Amino acid sequence: MTHRVFFLNGPNANLYGLDKNGTYGRESFASIQARCERHAAGLGLSLDFRQSNHEGVLVDWIQAARLDADAVVINAAGLSYSSVPILDALLAFDGPIIEAHMSNLWKRESFRHHSYVSKAATGVVAGLGALGYELALTAVAALLQETTTSAHS
Amino acid sequence: MTHRVFFLNGPNANLYGLDKNGTYGRESFASIQARCERHAAGLGLSLDFRQSNHEGVLVDWIQAARLDADAVVINAAGLSYSSVPILDALLAFDGPIIEAHMSNLWKRESFRHHSYVSKAATGVVAGLGALGYELALTAVAALLQETTTSAHS
Amino acid sequence: MTHRVFFLNGPNANLYGLDKNGTYGRESFASIQARCERHAAGLGLSLDFRQSNHEGVLVDWIQAARLDADAVVINAAGLSYSSVPILDALLAFDGPIIEAHMSNLWKRESFRHHSYVSKAATGVVAGLGALGYELALTAVAALLQETTTSAHS
Amino acid sequence: MTHRVFFLNGPNANLYGLDKNGTYGRESFASIQARCERHAAGLGLSLDFRQSNHEGVLVDWIQAARLDADAVVINAAGLSYSSVPILDALLAFDGPIIEAHMSNLWKRESFRHHSYVSKAATGVVAGLGALGYELALTAVAALLQETTTSAHS
Amino acid sequence: MTHRVFFLNGPNANLYGLDKNGTYGRESFASIQARCERHAAGLGLSLDFRQSNHEGVLVDWIQAARLDADAVVINAAGLSYSSVPILDALLAFDGPIIEAHMSNLWKRESFRHHSYVSKAATGVVAGLGALGYELALTAVAALLQETTTSAHS
Amino acid sequence: MTHRVFFLNGPNANLYGLDKNGTYGRESFASIQARCERHAAGLGLSLDFRQSNHEGVLVDWIQAARLDADAVVINAAGLSYSSVPILDALLAFDGPIIEAHMSNLWKRESFRHHSYVSKAATGVVAGLGALGYELALTAVAALLQETTTSAHS
Amino acid sequence: MTHRVFFLNGPNANLYGLDKNGTYGRESFASIQARCERHAAGLGLSLDFRQSNHEGVLVDWIQAARLDADAVVINAAGLSYSSVPILDALLAFDGPIIEAHMSNLWKRESFRHHSYVSKAATGVVAGLGALGYELALTAVAALLQETTTSAHS
Amino acid sequence: MTHRVFFLNGPNANLYGLDKNGTYGRESFASIQARCERHAAGLGLSLDFRQSNHEGVLVDWIQAARLDADAVVINAAGLSYSSVPILDALLAFDGPIIEAHMSNLWKRESFRHHSYVSKAATGVVAGLGALGYELALTAVAALLQETTTSAHS
Amino acid sequence: MTHRVFFLNGPNANLYGLDKNGTYGRESFASIQARCERHAAGLGLSLDFRQSNHEGVLVDWIQAARLDADAVVINAAGLSYSSVPILDALLAFDGPIIEAHMSNLWKRESFRHHSYVSKAATGVVAGLGALGYELALTAVAALLQETTTSAHS
Amino acid sequence: MTHRVFFLNGPNANLYGLDKNGTYGRESFASIQARCERHAAGLGLSLDFRQSNHEGVLVDWIQAARLDADAVVINAAGLSYSSVPILDALLAFDGPIIEAHMSNLWKRESFRHHSYVSKAATGVVAGLGALGYELALTAVAALLQETTTSAHS
Amino acid sequence: MTHRVFFLNGPNANLYGLDKNGTYGRESFASIQARCERHAAGLGLSLDFRQSNHEGVLVDWIQAARLDADAVVINAAGLSYSSVPILDALLAFDGPIIEAHMSNLWKRESFRHHSYVSKAATGVVAGLGALGYELALTAVAALLQETTTSAHS
Amino acid sequence: MTHRVFFLNGPNANLYGLDKNGTYGRESFASIQARCERHAAGLGLSLDFRQSNHEGVLVDWIQAARLDADAVVINAAGLSYSSVPILDALLAFDGPIIEAHMSNLWKRESFRHHSYVSKAATGVVAGLGALGYELALTAVAALLQETTTSAHS
Repeated sequence: MTHRVFFLNGPNANLYGLDKNGTYGRESFASIQARCERHAAGLGLSLDFRQSNHEGVLVDWIQAARLDADAVVINAAGLSYSSVPILDALLAFDGPIIEAHMSNLWKRESFRHHSYVSKAATGVVAGLGALGYELALTAVAALLQETTTSAHS
Repeated sequence: MTHRVFFLNGPNANLYGLDKNGTYGRESFASIQARCERHAAGLGLSLDFRQSNHEGVLVDWIQAARLDADAVVINAAGLSYSSVPILDALLAFDGPIIEAHMSNLWKRESFRHHSYVSKAATGVVAGLGALGYELALTAVAALLQETTTSAHS
Repeated sequence: MTHRVFFLNGPNANLYGLDKNGTYGRESFASIQARCERHAAGLGLSLDFRQSNHEGVLVDWIQAARLDADAVVINAAGLSYSSVPILDALLAFDGPIIEAHMSNLWKRESFRHHSYVSKAATGVVAGLGALGYELALTAVAALLQETTTSAHS
Repeated sequence: MTHRVFFLNGPNANLYGLDKNGTYGRESFASIQARCERHAAGLGLSLDFRQSNHEGVLVDWIQAARLDADAVVINAAGLSYSSVPILDALLAFDGPIIEAHMSNLWKRESFRHHSYVSKAATGVVAGLGALGYELALTAVAALLQETTTSAHS
Repeated sequence: MTHRVFFLNGPNANLYGLDKNGTYGRESFASIQARCERHAAGLGLSLDFRQSNHEGVLVDWIQAARLDADAVVINAAGLSYSSVPILDALLAFDGPIIEAHMSNLWKRESFRHHSYVSKAATGVVAGLGALGYELALTAVAALLQETTTSAHS
Repeated sequence: MTHRVFFLNGPNANLYGLDKNGTYGRESFASIQARCERHAAGLGLSLDFRQSNHEGVLVDWIQAARLDADAVVINAAGLSYSSVPILDALLAFDGPIIEAHMSNLWKRESFRHHSYVSKAATGVVAGLGALGYELALTAVAALLQETTTSAHS
Repeated sequence: MTHRVFFLNGPNANLYGLDKNGTYGRESFASIQARCERHAAGLGLSLDFRQSNHEGVLVDWIQAARLDADAVVINAAGLSYSSVPILDALLAFDGPIIEAHMSNLWKRESFRHHSYVSKAATGVVAGLGALGYELALTAVAALLQETTTSAHS
Repeated sequence: MTHRVFFLNGPNANLYGLDKNGTYGRESFASIQARCERHAAGLGLSLDFRQSNHEGVLVDWIQAARLDADAVVINAAGLSYSSVPILDALLAFDGPIIEAHMSNLWKRESFRHHSYVSKAATGVVAGLGALGYELALTAVAALLQETTTSAHS
Repeated sequence: MTHRVFFLNGPNANLYGLDKNGTYGRESFASIQARCERHAAGLGLSLDFRQSNHEGVLVDWIQAARLDADAVVINAAGLSYSSVPILDALLAFDGPIIEAHMSNLWKRESFRHHSYVSKAATGVVAGLGALGYELALTAVAALLQETTTSAHS
Repeated sequence: MTHRVFFLNGPNANLYGLDKNGTYGRESFASIQARCERHAAGLGLSLDFRQSNHEGVLVDWIQAARLDADAVVINAAGLSYSSVPILDALLAFDGPIIEAHMSNLWKRESFRHHSYVSKAATGVVAGLGALGYELALTAVAALLQETTTSAHS
Repeated sequence: MTHRVFFLNGPNANLYGLDKNGTYGRESFASIQARCERHAAGLGLSLDFRQSNHEGVLVDWIQAARLDADAVVINAAGLSYSSVPILDALLAFDGPIIEAHMSNLWKRESFRHHSYVSKAATGVVAGLGALGYELALTAVAALLQETTTSAHS
Repeated sequence: MTHRVFFLNGPNANLYGLDKNGTYGRESFASIQARCERHAAGLGLSLDFRQSNHEGVLVDWIQAARLDADAVVINAAGLSYSSVPILDALLAFDGPIIEAHMSNLWKRESFRHHSYVSKAATGVVAGLGALGYELALTAVAALLQETTTSAHS
């Protein structure tokens, strides 16, 4: 059985690599997406990689994941710090949830040190750029494998 | 004259009854809607019951209520705690506004203890589930009746 | 079976309607009591409507409710914001508890935005004046009905 | 000489053992009182064990202790967290004061982590149930013995 | 016409002069009362000087002042810092209100630096001992004189 | 060369002049837009004046400005106080940014005293109504002129 | 012996009575000064009534009072809330200090609820307008009389 | 009729352009003054441009403006964050008040994010250097024109 | 069966009685230890009384208690206020834990009013000097007796 | 070239799997260590896996890593929240640092929501148990590979 | 070359030694000045020792130091805690700045624990009385020597 | 008589001069030690210069100083901000204590702005590098000289 994973990216993630200060590295969003898709394929995961600048769309997608995904990886970006709707949607999702961030939030402005997403996430990976995204997918694959195995045993 | 009421539901309200922890009871959103519609009909109100995960859509609807509704019942859900746009839209609405919540927010996490909606609401009903929604409609009917009566006297 | 309800009013509630600023409406406390008694009678409830300026008396009454009442409606007024004794007494009461307030506390001074009573209440109704008191009684009747029904089924 | 001790219990202490959650153990207040009286007798103390839900009564009793008691043991219960009148009355009492609590307040809600009584107490015993009440009496006996001895030497 | 004044003293005021630390001076409460009565008589005021350790009694008295007094002088003592019931009762009183304190609260513990009574008082006199009580009465006499004069002109 | 400017208006700006309290003046949004367009034309600017109640749409527009505009004037309205997505989009924009507000936020409720937009803005103009919008455009024209001049020198 | 009193007025006190909102009454500063001088004369005090908008000048005057005055009455006005230099100067003055305010600061903006002057003052009189100034002088006269008497006995 | 405007500059403004970090641009204070005077002349305003490092002098000048000016532009610089005397003086001034700052305060240290001047100002212009000063004058001219027009109509 | 108890003392406890201010009484640490050993013997407990200035050593000892002790009495002294490692070690210990302090922490500096140890302790005894240490041992003996009894029944 | 990695574990990590509540999973510390060593070997890393309950020892080890390691993985456990010495030691280390936590700290007590280690770490992995430890090692291997590659190119 | 040093003393420093509580020692200000002048002479420094109670004068002097001094020693006294004008003036000074305080501020009231001067100072010396002033001068001499040497090498 | 001085250095002080950012200067710890020893010798002091990364060891040393030293100079480094054990040990030391810091803590991260060591120190020297260490020794020599002199007079 192929596990389905939603990888949801929040506001401005589509600008990665375009920011002149390099806050989010030098790799373009398209390239990061390609890298995640290759990595997911190698793990035998079916990946659905999406991005939106709209909180409501992200909530819609997380709700859709209840039917269409076994796990969620999410970088809610600037919405992480204040969005209770995203938290509430995640709390209603049953599978593993990995919160991923390109940058190490705790080295940045203090308003980025608190994330509502963390309250619903299984685990968190931050500060490791696109490598961290791959690790998040590796974690998802392992967690789903574990669940499947224990469910079948 | 039939009074028109908008009953606006915020993010994730459509999941009521589906949440495995039962935070918002066991009754489905469709069933709650049907119950409110029956109750409104009994009160002689014309009810427009809507739900959106998008803050902007909720703001659009509240603005529309300036022309198309005599009162608003609103459960802004996870947006209650941080949305000034919803507050500002409500402040520009002239009729009665009832803030309604399925659960008793003050028994939950502390970030749910403050609501911007309260600053614009006429009254608040919380913690009484779908029953509270019916009470909110009863309140709206009484408040509109009162206004009509005093306007005609 | 007739359900017995205590409706407990805290400090200064006896001045309702007498305040020259009209903070709590223009209806006198005696009139509000009469209205609640009529409404309770209509719901088939046996109502015991009391008022005291003394925290200790309110605690005594809530303790008495353990034997003599099936539900409590309470407007602890100025004691809502600081009285842990009232909270503790309510926490030891098993039936439904409705917190009721004439005014919308969240539009008033910030020290009125926090209520200890909410931590023990089943539900909250605020800002709807004497109408809200009637709704609180309606809620109590419905909640007791539900309990009775499920206990008998 | 027999030392006289006031053991003052605050709001809702009379419900100990009746609370269905067992927050304050399973032993009834009457039983705890009997246990304290036996223990005091064994220590040669004359014990006056009282309970009130009224702050003012507790203040009256502490004032009376200035004439009628050599020491005070007090569990101000829900009044501990906010009552300056009780603090002020205790500050005007000359003998040993032991603050006693059935439960370990620091494992409970944060509003119970601060006690005004502590600012006037000689010592504090908490979290040990009725056993702690006995220890408080043992402490009082020892402290009074010490005072008497040094006064006579 | 003789103006009637209630001079209300809160918890532990009856211990003034008895406190071994002399926080509230060396003059007994009875002596302070006598001094106030002499001073009031000199001003042509009818003085009703009362003390209670019970918040509820103080609220009852302030409510009674609506009928029986033209002005209120109040030292709510330890209740000043937390009692909203006293504040609410005072807010419903129409005449001049003087808040009086024996000691300068702002030189004492920080929890005494905030008084709810101040939010309803016309003026405040603090730190001047029994002399301050006399000044409060002088103020009351002047304020009532002013009102009377302007009412008659 | 004609400089292109995006003038982005946030939630409820479309209600300006319709609010019965006159918080945002008596001039309608359409009239303000016309006034800004006339003023921009006089300054030789190509103005794109937009309004949305949706945070995501505003983020989309700011991202579009990276390609289609030389400067941004923004009144994020109720989103100013909490939207990190808007801040992050603005931080990725290279040209001048002017934050504009019709009203003086610091005379209003305290939650309007902090704006995330300010952290990305070149300058701020507030409290001057539609006149302030014109000044913001004047500022943009001067800043762009300066840049062009120094780039050509 | 005639006691010498400095009555020091801080920034903007010279505008009393001129403020169109009447925050500080309708009596002009000159008239208040005259009233204080008459009252002081009646008490047998030698009054030096001064006003300055400069913190440094007020500090200079308080230092001068060490040699030239027996008591100080001070309304530091807007400097009360933040000036440690004025506090430090007052702490170095040996005689009685009365802090006086025309208005009841605790009914105004919250930044006016804390005064550094209070930490050095013997007593505080506030909210009683020019009448309060007279009471402050009466207090000073009594306090100096007391000191003189006890020094001579 | 020529409108008279006071442009008041606070502590250290005279160092503009001299600061080696360029926090306040590279333009000298004399040059900024000249630029403002030219701009004011063009607007038909009579400008009185002053600077002082002394809070008291600034208060004196604002008081003088009651007689000698129709509007005030003020950059209170380092005094903006703590000076209530300046706020109180401005609150007693009837005409338009524009708060102006060379730099964008909200991008600097957090203690510069709050200004007492804002509470009295009609509008605020910040972060636009000397250009912002010109805009402030333009705003003043427009506001005075408006007042004059409406007064004559 | 003899119950084994670890009595662990934190930093600087070895200086008790040596401190010239007498903060921790006049009894030396050696004397306190002897007193505890005598008391424990009387209770039939096997006591292991230790002291260390090293957080790590205290953690090591608490971990050792998992194998070698039935109960722990601990005065973590200056580490109580900040040591999560000690809290975590205590949370992993199954038997009764008594937190003991020589002095009444709540009468001392505010940074001593919070203890992490309390979050893991069964009960707390404070302010009673070496007498309190004996009471802590009495409590331990009673709690272990209770457990043994119920385990055998 | 084989890269050397220090994997440093803080207080109580040696109890993993022994805690009866399963906060840190059911896998023993020895087993986790073995799993990490296998994983590191597979990545071609030379792993030095250590644990201490002593802050000072952890600081010593981090200092030693300056000479003996190319990267550090650290779970400072209960010291994460308060240890500036560990932060300072890490700030003086040049290679990659991964902060790893077995549990998701943000779902636990609020005092665990802040980590000083984050301020020095390259990246953070939390909430994924021993799997997260393996991911941390994978990250380290990739980061060191990257550095080596870029250093050689 | 003789280095010129400004030693600036803030409000009330001129009272040193006169304060009856001895907060600032028993040495008079004149004597401290003489001691500093002798010490400076011994170090080959040209000392300009000044005192003012006026913030504005201190700012003027710090600005003057830009031309007339190579270093500044400053005890801003009561202005240290709130004066941004002094901070801003110091930030515009290029040479070494030593903040000096007679007393150890951190043992005094909490409002003295924060100094704006520290944000601009090279170093701080506190709690060592006049000896500390000499050490500040020694530090200045060494820092200027260092600068001179490195400038010449 | 030769005075003995302990100069105690906390965690990571041994890395001074090795930090690539130069936070603590470019001088190695060995060199700083040598410089202090030379300076102490010149002052006739017997210096014992130590460093440890272990809080417990520092506490042990401060306790040892009660017997073996006349004064303590201490840079508790990263432990300054949170170690109550070090504070308590210092409070039990009778001689002069100088707190010394290489860097100016108040220009660094806000968690370094508070030091527990200051509450026990006689004086503080910070921000002056190794020069400040020498000044601390000079201060110690002077303070001990003073004590000796007054003891002998």
